[in-house]
Amino acid sequence: MVYQYNETAFKTRLDQEAEFTTRAMGTLLPVDEGPEGRLMDAVRYSALMGGKRVRPYLTLNTAALFNVDPKCALRVAAAIEMVHCYSLVHDDLPAMDDDDLRRGQPTCHIKYDEATAILAGDALLTRAFEVLSEDGTHQDANVRIELVKELSKAAGPFGMVGGQMLDLIAHEHDLDMSEVARLQRMKTGALINIACVSGAILGKAQDSSLHKLHGYAHDLGLAFQIVDDLLDVTGDEEDVGKRIGKDEEQGKATFVSLMGVDHARDQAQLLRDQAIEQLEVFGEKADPLRDMAHFVVNRVS
Amino acid sequence: MVYQYNETAFKTRLDQEAEFTTRAMGTLLPVDEGPEGRLMDAVRYSALMGGKRVRPYLTLNTAALFNVDPKCALRVAAAIEMVHCYSLVHDDLPAMDDDDLRRGQPTCHIKYDEATAILAGDALLTRAFEVLSEDGTHQDANVRIELVKELSKAAGPFGMVGGQMLDLIAHEHDLDMSEVARLQRMKTGALINIACVSGAILGKAQDSSLHKLHGYAHDLGLAFQIVDDLLDVTGDEEDVGKRIGKDEEQGKATFVSLMGVDHARDQAQLLRDQAIEQLEVFGEKADPLRDMAHFVVNRVS
Repeated sequence: MVYQYNETAFKTRLDQEAEFTTRAMGTLLPVDEGPEGRLMDAVRYSALMGGKRVRPYLTLNTAALFNVDPKCALRVAAAIEMVHCYSLVHDDLPAMDDDDLRRGQPTCHIKYDEATAILAGDALLTRAFEVLSEDGTHQDANVRIELVKELSKAAGPFGMVGGQMLDLIAHEHDLDMSEVARLQRMKTGALINIACVSGAILGKAQDSSLHKLHGYAHDLGLAFQIVDDLLDVTGDEEDVGKRIGKDEEQGKATFVSLMGVDHARDQAQLLRDQAIEQLEVFGEKADPLRDMAHFVVNRVS
Repeated sequence: MVYQYNETAFKTRLDQEAEFTTRAMGTLLPVDEGPEGRLMDAVRYSALMGGKRVRPYLTLNTAALFNVDPKCALRVAAAIEMVHCYSLVHDDLPAMDDDDLRRGQPTCHIKYDEATAILAGDALLTRAFEVLSEDGTHQDANVRIELVKELSKAAGPFGMVGGQMLDLIAHEHDLDMSEVARLQRMKTGALINIACVSGAILGKAQDSSLHKLHGYAHDLGLAFQIVDDLLDVTGDEEDVGKRIGKDEEQGKATFVSLMGVDHARDQAQLLRDQAIEQLEVFGEKADPLRDMAHFVVNRVS
């Protein structure tokens, strides 16, 4: 059967898997009844407030390619999403992007306070590694330690945190296209990459499969960022759930400021097609990943 | 030969091992030549500015009890110290303890800025887990994942980060002795504990040895905190390297405010003796750990 993107069916699936992830995170991030319970309240507020759960979807559906036990995949999906949520909490802080609104809700430091938000981010990051290290994640310690290694590399100073540093000082430099692309690869690409690759690690996949998923993740991540930049220019604030027009206001070089809206849109579509090409070897089982590539480029929020 | 504490010899050893640790951390936290290099500069500033390196000393010398390869022990010591350094960087932030001075030097957010300090802390924490996960830390993946598990538990919301939350809101509650002790166990005890136990994990020690080291770490950590509280009352600002008198100023319940200076001093000495008792089974090889127990109680900084 020829593959066709069905947005309604995809969104139902995305919502359902987001719900699974949120429920798993709720269990892995328990309420704390002690006097310090404010911390876990803030952690849960930040982690469970929703979101599309794109990274968990990628982990769950790459894991399915290799017939990984869904219970294991869900733990890894939850851990990676914890790292994503921690990065949002810290990025939203007054000293960083100073955002009051996230997913249409008050950000963590607005709802609680700055100190609590800093600690909530720290707690989410730390707990992510603990979850990966626990026996339930995979029976083979080699697999678990590989996940820790790849996630810490992706999230660390030469990945996501380095990308956030670069983003903060981007206005001091006149970034060209290759530098904007490098920033994206570090700031958002690295985590999308581990989300895709973690399923293959869990499934002890061959290098050739890993290679294809790296390629898929690379193109998908880039497309995702280009669309993010587009939404900041052309999106609807209510749909997007956060303040828009910030990039231009801050004089930030983005894919859109460097390429223009039309070219950026073309580029995102090209990357979508390239991402999908990488999946050929996996057959129909990869349809959920094909769907995601379409969704990332079509989304309005 | 009967054991005797020789402070001069101990301090030489402590300084030497601190130097080993700092050098290892310097290698594990490389300079970044990219435009985001400011991040690794701040990381290195915070991690390499010195300090007594008590936790690394504990790891190195408990590892020696089990004839662990010193190269492996040094990596673990460095990783645990990265977590300690990250906690200091975040605790010093304006939204938290708002400290300008640390070890007699400007704190990270004073030397750089708040955003960079938040990210530098995040980077140190993440890199610690990466270091543990790398092959050089131990050839057996089971050992590496056990280290990740124990360190993340110690540093997480039910350990160090939870303790910091509790500390921040301590003035809202009238903490009694058992609550102050719980706060200490979480905020500083948990990391001291993993510092001691990590050597045994590396050495695949038996449960009975682990149990003894847990006991040693518990008493040592408590003694350490009591002396910290004492130094905040009776210490010399220049010796201590940070502002003193803060606990009383903030109306914080401490071991000293609850027990009084004399009783607190007696209690620290009792804990020192108890800690040392736990080491009997290890014979002379544990003398460096006996030394540390004496040092912790005698120290003036």
